[in-house]
Amino acid sequence: MFKEHAIMNGEIVKVADAVVNVTYREVQFSFSVYESISIVKGRAIFLEDHITRLFNSCVGIRLRHPFRRSEIKKSIIDLINVDEIESATMRILIIGGESSKLFITYTDKLTYPNSYYTEGVFATTYEGERLFPKYKTSNLLLSYIALEDAKSKGAFESILLNGDGFLLEGTRTNFYGFQNNKLFTANNEEALEGITRTRILEACKDLNIEVIMRAPMLKEIRQGKFDEIFISSTSMAAMPINRLDDTELYGDFSRTISLMKIIREKESFDR
Amino acid sequence: MFKEHAIMNGEIVKVADAVVNVTYREVQFSFSVYESISIVKGRAIFLEDHITRLFNSCVGIRLRHPFRRSEIKKSIIDLINVDEIESATMRILIIGGESSKLFITYTDKLTYPNSYYTEGVFATTYEGERLFPKYKTSNLLLSYIALEDAKSKGAFESILLNGDGFLLEGTRTNFYGFQNNKLFTANNEEALEGITRTRILEACKDLNIEVIMRAPMLKEIRQGKFDEIFISSTSMAAMPINRLDDTELYGDFSRTISLMKIIREKESFDR
Repeated sequence: MFKEHAIMNGEIVKVADAVVNVTYREVQFSFSVYESISIVKGRAIFLEDHITRLFNSCVGIRLRHPFRRSEIKKSIIDLINVDEIESATMRILIIGGESSKLFITYTDKLTYPNSYYTEGVFATTYEGERLFPKYKTSNLLLSYIALEDAKSKGAFESILLNGDGFLLEGTRTNFYGFQNNKLFTANNEEALEGITRTRILEACKDLNIEVIMRAPMLKEIRQGKFDEIFISSTSMAAMPINRLDDTELYGDFSRTISLMKIIREKESFDR
Repeated sequence: MFKEHAIMNGEIVKVADAVVNVTYREVQFSFSVYESISIVKGRAIFLEDHITRLFNSCVGIRLRHPFRRSEIKKSIIDLINVDEIESATMRILIIGGESSKLFITYTDKLTYPNSYYTEGVFATTYEGERLFPKYKTSNLLLSYIALEDAKSKGAFESILLNGDGFLLEGTRTNFYGFQNNKLFTANNEEALEGITRTRILEACKDLNIEVIMRAPMLKEIRQGKFDEIFISSTSMAAMPINRLDDTELYGDFSRTISLMKIIREKESFDR
């Protein structure tokens, strides 16, 4: 895989030419939306869902653009074919304004050591709330800084803590907590409706896990009121957290691992 | 003036080449800071203050970069000379990351009809607060959307209303209210320390106007508790507001106009 090409407004271009001018106002104001999509065995996973959410994000911030679902799908297939992509994480970006732009680029597929799933990962918390949390916009400075803060402490992810003490979502993940057989997570207004999150909520139905659409609070986690907490994303599926700030969480993460396996299976059915 | 050139990392380039690749992570995350500077008669006004604030913004969001004050000043002079710029609004942009980037570009100088000063402008309000309000970052989606909302209502500016009902700043301006001879404005932690704002606060000292570092509340304005309200920026100096949402403000805006004239005079001394 050479990562030689990208898509710009429906055309295949050299990736070096996938550029925007810094004088373009909508670049200056981060007036853009995006999606990250897994490519597995040359196929874009949950593609329809991702394009639907991309368009929802556009509507949410009133970003008008001429790009159609069929064109975006064709462009993704063109890019997969021209670079013979087997496995990748693909990014669709739409920038608004008078001369709106569509870019599709890709990187090596994000993967994680198996131990992250069996042993869990360390996460920190960061005070802040994403602007327009229902939409996936490029207004990502908070996520960037929160994640840098986490990395500086040796952590894998940072969970955003809102002004009322609730943990709504991670910088690139959704966030969940188990109390016995009840799963707690932020409601649809407070956090991104992750594509993987939707699959997890479906799986909970199948597994008779009760879902409570209310975000876990940091103080509840400190008080030991959640016996398992985890994050989810397209690239991670479901990944357990073994420590949040200074609070350690013990156990075999069996519920998170079950969910992770179900997600991976659903992905394979989408191929 | 042909707007032919720009600066990229200290080099003069064609403005069409002032581009960034969309795969660069710090572009994707809006991890960048900027300044807007007036060029008047071929001279950058309050340049030292702007570079100081640019560097403060970098420190504030932990953006490391190799660019030095002397280099930035030289680049600005190079750009003024190569395009024979007399009058312009210049933009300095620093993008962070492993391969941090410096861009200097410019547009026609923003100017406004004289009637905006003598009659005032219409402004609306928008709920939201800028992330890291002390720093001038590219995390500008809120400002973009608030201003679009204002424009759709025929307004000139949108003033951001925080969760506690205070009007902290406009989308590209500082915000102030007069109660007789007392001037109210957000404190230094809640809003950008505008270069023009600093000049206004200095002028208040000279004019024996008492300054209260506390933002006006929307409900106070509705109740008629402020007899003159205005905005300030590098391009506007001080500009009166004649209507905020549905609240009309009457008067000759004499205090705002006095401040505007003092700012313009200070600018001319900086030449």
